[in-house]
Amino acid sequence: MQTELRGPTAVVTIGPDLPTVMIGERINPTGRKVFSAELQAGDLSRIPRDVQAQVMAGAGVLDVNVGAAGVDEVKWLPEAVKLVQETADVPVCIDSPNPQALAAALKVTQGRALVNSVNGEEARLSSVLPVVAEHGAAVIALCMDDDGIPTTPEDRLRVAEKILERAAKLGIGVESLVFDPLVLTIGSDHRAGLVTLETARLLREKLGCNMTVGASNSSHGMPNRELLNTVFLAQLITVGVNAPICNPVKNALAVRAADLMLGRDEWAMTYIQAYRTLSSMQEAAT
Amino acid sequence: MQTELRGPTAVVTIGPDLPTVMIGERINPTGRKVFSAELQAGDLSRIPRDVQAQVMAGAGVLDVNVGAAGVDEVKWLPEAVKLVQETADVPVCIDSPNPQALAAALKVTQGRALVNSVNGEEARLSSVLPVVAEHGAAVIALCMDDDGIPTTPEDRLRVAEKILERAAKLGIGVESLVFDPLVLTIGSDHRAGLVTLETARLLREKLGCNMTVGASNSSHGMPNRELLNTVFLAQLITVGVNAPICNPVKNALAVRAADLMLGRDEWAMTYIQAYRTLSSMQEAAT
Repeated sequence: MQTELRGPTAVVTIGPDLPTVMIGERINPTGRKVFSAELQAGDLSRIPRDVQAQVMAGAGVLDVNVGAAGVDEVKWLPEAVKLVQETADVPVCIDSPNPQALAAALKVTQGRALVNSVNGEEARLSSVLPVVAEHGAAVIALCMDDDGIPTTPEDRLRVAEKILERAAKLGIGVESLVFDPLVLTIGSDHRAGLVTLETARLLREKLGCNMTVGASNSSHGMPNRELLNTVFLAQLITVGVNAPICNPVKNALAVRAADLMLGRDEWAMTYIQAYRTLSSMQEAAT
Repeated sequence: MQTELRGPTAVVTIGPDLPTVMIGERINPTGRKVFSAELQAGDLSRIPRDVQAQVMAGAGVLDVNVGAAGVDEVKWLPEAVKLVQETADVPVCIDSPNPQALAAALKVTQGRALVNSVNGEEARLSSVLPVVAEHGAAVIALCMDDDGIPTTPEDRLRVAEKILERAAKLGIGVESLVFDPLVLTIGSDHRAGLVTLETARLLREKLGCNMTVGASNSSHGMPNRELLNTVFLAQLITVGVNAPICNPVKNALAVRAADLMLGRDEWAMTYIQAYRTLSSMQEAAT
């Protein structure tokens, strides 16, 4: 089961037992005041730097999100996607709740994008899946629906199966879906991490699918979030998550370490290279 | 499947889904020149400090090894065990290749010890298991035999089953065995970590047993060993290792983080407490 994404010429393959593909999360105004203000002023000049840093750190795909208050995503999401792909030969993960913005961005995308995201809500299924199908894109499928985020792995699997069924009707196969088992904050429910890990195990076992997750969401409010994120990423990758959304500048070495320990890195070449690159990026930053 | 160990009064239970029990590895002269020299001079005065630091950092069991060149283990291993248990109310993991030393140490042990170790070699089975049975102890069982360390998970399982069978004949049940799937150096074989993880998964699935492993052995010669050890511990705990041999002063927070993400730490109490304790230990050390 392999999901192929493409940039202008680059090909990135997500698959079980292949090296983990990091989806870089930085091009996103959420929690970034300066970037938000810039987007609101129509200034995209920060994007090339975020592209370069993330690609250098080992991102295989870049998430592109321009969703700040007052920003017209239909206009600016395509502009941002173009700029990302002018800066680096990389597949994009087009991130918006707005189906028109997704469609507009897909029109200017080079290669094959990942769309972020559909879920089991009727409104999303009927508005997003046709756009994905029309452009032959792949899509992230969140395991939640009109009843919210299920509390058990079995119920999250059921949502995944519903999305799969609806996608199939439009000719979108499981190899074009990247499922997100979803993670809630560990601080509000101490079983949140376990449910995510068990959901990922179950999805891999039952659907054989590729998976993403935004691991860092889980550690809000905890001390030493960096360690928690490292540990949780290692656990997620071990149970089958193979395309996490993360900040590669912070998380790449943990991801490469997890791959190394899972036998996916001959001679430890990728780990050692990542260690060198990230060390020199850190030095340059200080 | 629970393995119960006891100190003078303390009870420590190793079991699936219970919080991970760290076996503190520091009381061991291997790689510690000063401690080796002290042991050779009959000086055990460093031991109480190693006991206190490891217990404070969260060790549930303490490994006790006095195997330096020229040290009479039959004489000194019991002395070290007595001193450890005079310093803290903790079960011991009695670590020696010498069955006479194990027997002598077990005679003075308070509570129920873990013996480190037996393996599938005929000489070890016939010399160590009777001592374990006589004292009603538990024992670490390494998945290797007279043919060496098997290269596949299936062959390591076969060795585990052989040990299990031999132990059963002496009345030692699977709940008194803590299996070690074994880990080789990742630098000499990039599949070493994977084989260990797959062996652990297989042992848990087929035998339901509790497991230990010396995780840090795998990272020799690699850059950023601390991160590799953190990641590998998280992975091992995720696939069922629940009593790793480690340095709790260095590894406790990673272990507690892994437990937290596996839903074994209500309100994150243990993680947050460990964070505070280890932070103040680090401050005190600098």
